[in-house]
Amino acid sequence: MRLSRSELRRQQRRLARVRLGLRGAAAAEPVAPAADGPKVSPLAPPGGFPDLPPVKGVRLATINSGIRYKGRDDVMLAVLPPDTAMAGVTTRSSTRAAPVLDCEDKLAMAVEPGAPAAIIVNAGNANAFTGRNGQEAVDHVTSAVAAVTGVPKSRVFSSSTGVIGQPLPWERIAAALSSLTASLEDSAFGHAARAIMTTDTFPKGAGASVEIGGETVAIAGIAKGSGMIAPDMGTMLVYIFTDARIGRDLLQRTVSELTDRSFNCITVDGDTSTSDTLLVAATGQAGPDIAEGSEAATAFAEALGTVMTDLALQVVRDGEGATKLLEIRVTGAVSAEDARKVALAIANSPLVKTAVAGEDPNWGRVVMAVGKSGAVADRDLLSIWFGPHVVAENGWVSPEYREEIGAAYMKRAELELRVDLGIGHGHATVWTCDLTHDYIRINADYRS
Amino acid sequence: MRLSRSELRRQQRRLARVRLGLRGAAAAEPVAPAADGPKVSPLAPPGGFPDLPPVKGVRLATINSGIRYKGRDDVMLAVLPPDTAMAGVTTRSSTRAAPVLDCEDKLAMAVEPGAPAAIIVNAGNANAFTGRNGQEAVDHVTSAVAAVTGVPKSRVFSSSTGVIGQPLPWERIAAALSSLTASLEDSAFGHAARAIMTTDTFPKGAGASVEIGGETVAIAGIAKGSGMIAPDMGTMLVYIFTDARIGRDLLQRTVSELTDRSFNCITVDGDTSTSDTLLVAATGQAGPDIAEGSEAATAFAEALGTVMTDLALQVVRDGEGATKLLEIRVTGAVSAEDARKVALAIANSPLVKTAVAGEDPNWGRVVMAVGKSGAVADRDLLSIWFGPHVVAENGWVSPEYREEIGAAYMKRAELELRVDLGIGHGHATVWTCDLTHDYIRINADYRS
Repeated sequence: MRLSRSELRRQQRRLARVRLGLRGAAAAEPVAPAADGPKVSPLAPPGGFPDLPPVKGVRLATINSGIRYKGRDDVMLAVLPPDTAMAGVTTRSSTRAAPVLDCEDKLAMAVEPGAPAAIIVNAGNANAFTGRNGQEAVDHVTSAVAAVTGVPKSRVFSSSTGVIGQPLPWERIAAALSSLTASLEDSAFGHAARAIMTTDTFPKGAGASVEIGGETVAIAGIAKGSGMIAPDMGTMLVYIFTDARIGRDLLQRTVSELTDRSFNCITVDGDTSTSDTLLVAATGQAGPDIAEGSEAATAFAEALGTVMTDLALQVVRDGEGATKLLEIRVTGAVSAEDARKVALAIANSPLVKTAVAGEDPNWGRVVMAVGKSGAVADRDLLSIWFGPHVVAENGWVSPEYREEIGAAYMKRAELELRVDLGIGHGHATVWTCDLTHDYIRINADYRS
Repeated sequence: MRLSRSELRRQQRRLARVRLGLRGAAAAEPVAPAADGPKVSPLAPPGGFPDLPPVKGVRLATINSGIRYKGRDDVMLAVLPPDTAMAGVTTRSSTRAAPVLDCEDKLAMAVEPGAPAAIIVNAGNANAFTGRNGQEAVDHVTSAVAAVTGVPKSRVFSSSTGVIGQPLPWERIAAALSSLTASLEDSAFGHAARAIMTTDTFPKGAGASVEIGGETVAIAGIAKGSGMIAPDMGTMLVYIFTDARIGRDLLQRTVSELTDRSFNCITVDGDTSTSDTLLVAATGQAGPDIAEGSEAATAFAEALGTVMTDLALQVVRDGEGATKLLEIRVTGAVSAEDARKVALAIANSPLVKTAVAGEDPNWGRVVMAVGKSGAVADRDLLSIWFGPHVVAENGWVSPEYREEIGAAYMKRAELELRVDLGIGHGHATVWTCDLTHDYIRINADYRS
């Protein structure tokens, strides 16, 4: 796992007890990109899919159900043991898809918490904007999973990703379920990560192990997402599994807080999906009970946060057409909310993103984005750094700055941009990628 | 003047008394694009710069002061007679440029309203983010104009557009002032429109004449702008002249209201300039007094609104890399504000804009944009039309719709997209253009 960004480094230093899953040649489950698939993003973490720790109680299977893709699996099934605590976060879109609404209901109601649980995901069809038909398809799929696995329907969570506006051929998923169930394997994360891909150029995984009360607790997560969210192609889906013993309420609060510092801090194009779903399943098969406010809760949250931030960054690294990863850190705002406004205004500005693509140290566009953000700012207190180089201060270009310094820095693949507003203590960090010809090519040149 | 959009047609029908300036072969002041300049936008209004009506009391001159460009004028001076009422609207950016702040002060204080007035504009340098030096440059320029023209400094308004972060070479403007003043000509709008261009591919003008109390009142406006706002290249500047006799307060209120329905309804890339400035000068040399609430006030506002909307659309038509003009009309929202939120979410979505560029009738991306807008929406009440074709209704694709219908419609250069939310009476219209390879090329491939 390569976490070069400063926020992550700080997080890692606090996290001495956590052994991070290693991305490397020793990966147990190498997942090669399809020979005919798109070129792997230049920002993909080196070394392929990481070697994730086994998570007790988690069984996974994948299959090609024939929904849309040929020659690759397109359905993933996870079966989780009794007493698994389920938590999750979904898109705030007002046009969210049928499986998202179904997940929300099931997370909120938490019926039969002592029963086993299951997650069924398909790629190739998002079952979004499909009217009543969409809800019926979710009912059919989750009923079929319940029938085959013995998991109560109220504990079967589903996601769909792919084209929108087309009825989900749920019969194909149903027909594949007995083969799927027969092939369940412990902790088969690599194949699962690959089965949920749509326009992704590499499968995304991250893991951590953390010592709690002398026992090792494992966390392993997979994600998909490429356009921050291309609704016709899909969206961001994330599934994280842990064998930690943690109650549903504490797990949900922890996941919600960490989401605000990870997945809610990334943007590729500012477009929000109709299908974004993050589910976290804690099987409770390792370590002691994690009590609210305990040292164990802190250690667990830190490890989970590292996995979530890593997965979030992998989504940005696979941003459509991305050639640069940009960390934007805003300090000195009147509030954290204002800092976040400024950071997102910069991250979503087409002019900033095209400047980054062109390796142009165009700090004027950063000034513009600060100005349009709606946050409290005083032009004459503003300072801007590209990496370690101060570019602007006191409302004008820094006397130390020379264009060659910025131009040389911009050639890097991973860039840090810092803006200090000089008026308060609010701060925020977001991550984005550049806006390139390939983004246009992917989204405009070919009919979806 | 070609106003094909439906909103404008409605406005025009109400406006029987107004004779619109004709764009055509008879244009008195043809302004050819520079031979070495960028290719003229395919969306440019046909027939070249329009034949604008003379406006009594307005004298204009342009010159090449050598700030940045060779072989073209880069400074415009307008001198206006005593008692000219000045009104204006400026950018809300918190990092706005020195001349913008100076204009705001002068508009607000309205010192010596009976004196003559002047507007001085340069292209090539935006005098933005230039610290105290920027304010000093504005002082030097406006003092020099005051000295040469006899206009009090408190009535000299200035704008600058071009690169940011570089000190404005104000001495070059000062040195050109006596030649400029010597060459003032009545109503020389075409040359003025050309002198304020930066990345624009065509000069922008619009005019109208309106009968008020049996007399003809003229309105003529010029504008520049190409990226909705590329802050390093400039921004949007608009100067409108009329010989109507109208008080400053009524003029300001009228201009502010009309700006919300014209210039505040366009977007190219959602990026807001540090320099946007609209100034309206009413010389008071034609027609009777226009009193608040009178029929004359309505007639004048309608004519002025037509000119402003026309100029606003010309800015979109010259959007960087634009090949399609898109009118987005949102109806059935709970409020006008919500309708505007939805319309702007669609207009600023990179996925919608790339779909339009690719002639892809991708209504799923429109659903996504509605969902992310933050406006109140019910997926199952949503309807979408591409031009006259209903695409989606009741939360799903319309049974009448076939992909070929949408694909054929998307081939047009000017597109109408309508979204009805089905829950209220709020409505809004905005205009935008597509997002193409040329936008990336203009903003990423070349260093500015």
